[in-house]
Amino acid sequence: MKIGVLGTGMVGSALASRLVEVGHEVRMGAREAGNAKARAWVEAAGRGASQGTFADAAAFGPIVFNCTLGTAALEALKAAGAANLRGKILVDVSNPLDFSKGMPAVLSTPQGDSLGESIQRAFPDARVVKTLNTVNANVMGHPDRVGSDSDLFLCGNDEPAKAEVRGLLAELGWKNPIDLGDIRGARGMEAYLLLWLTLYGVLGTSDFNIRIVRKADGLAAASRPALG
Amino acid sequence: MKIGVLGTGMVGSALASRLVEVGHEVRMGAREAGNAKARAWVEAAGRGASQGTFADAAAFGPIVFNCTLGTAALEALKAAGAANLRGKILVDVSNPLDFSKGMPAVLSTPQGDSLGESIQRAFPDARVVKTLNTVNANVMGHPDRVGSDSDLFLCGNDEPAKAEVRGLLAELGWKNPIDLGDIRGARGMEAYLLLWLTLYGVLGTSDFNIRIVRKADGLAAASRPALG
Repeated sequence: MKIGVLGTGMVGSALASRLVEVGHEVRMGAREAGNAKARAWVEAAGRGASQGTFADAAAFGPIVFNCTLGTAALEALKAAGAANLRGKILVDVSNPLDFSKGMPAVLSTPQGDSLGESIQRAFPDARVVKTLNTVNANVMGHPDRVGSDSDLFLCGNDEPAKAEVRGLLAELGWKNPIDLGDIRGARGMEAYLLLWLTLYGVLGTSDFNIRIVRKADGLAAASRPALG
Repeated sequence: MKIGVLGTGMVGSALASRLVEVGHEVRMGAREAGNAKARAWVEAAGRGASQGTFADAAAFGPIVFNCTLGTAALEALKAAGAANLRGKILVDVSNPLDFSKGMPAVLSTPQGDSLGESIQRAFPDARVVKTLNTVNANVMGHPDRVGSDSDLFLCGNDEPAKAEVRGLLAELGWKNPIDLGDIRGARGMEAYLLLWLTLYGVLGTSDFNIRIVRKADGLAAASRPALG
């Protein structure tokens, strides 16, 4: 499948590389075509990898990953172009974290909103699915880095879009992501980052995730109901 | 030990009952002495249980649990009285959740702040320790309800206060709560509630919690480093 990845940072590179690895054609998008990091990524990722502008990447295929910094996401998506995102599945991986006032970071969204919702409002014709933002870039494509059974979330207003993203997530190794409902689920998924960042400091590693535990888990792993 | 519990709701009742059960003398505080719910609780909890005003409960012993609604917590603590809280360990269990605009609830604190910090600022002579707010009232005193090995957090500026609270938590069944550092850790602990509330809706039960998972856990449970 042809997949566009917006963003050349750790998240964009890691996800784009993994998507190429599992067999997709991936175009990485940056503010300007020929971005040094994007070219280096194409070189490293090899066959199936290409690069261009945000608009080039968004126009490339039916699925677009937003891997830009949360505070720059709306601007990057505007550069990608509403026309290029129309009808597309827009997988939002970004987090609205503002590090400008130092640590601890704060969320750049007001209470009662989320970046996922902002993006869906700004691009009503895109089918926004929020996912993967609750784990580190390296864990996103390699859930085995934190053991065999941690939980991932997804949410969005478009059920077929979520089903398709679920398929992609399975290719990355995520067995049964938990569907948190419509795009408002992004509020909890993004707010959790404040706990994630604190845990990152305490644990001294970003190779961790959470698992939802219930009594049934203690009684018999096999009895754990499917949550997705 | 003599423990004051502010609040007569589900959280106050469940925690106060459990604290009596493990051998403490507990005074439940309400806006007015003789509150119907507080009297009913005393009746049910039996020996070791008493009730009074917020001030009566705060003056009762060296440890005070704030189990009031988050949106009313500062007012309740003001009624309890700064003098009655001076030098006390103030265990803040409350969450700044605003349900007034319907679901999903929003946090009533601004970004970059938390209720735990607000309380510590308002009562600088109290030794605030935030904990237990990330699980349901019933799970707080009975972690076995969600299996044998889920994670709890605590944070606060006063190390000896945290050590004492850790002892109390052990009596309730919490083996090794994760210390998130100073009271700013409350930001992540409270923001997580937005994810918790969404999961509550999806799972259809409040008998759940999270466990932090890392590769080491998958390799050998025994190798899991102590996080506290």
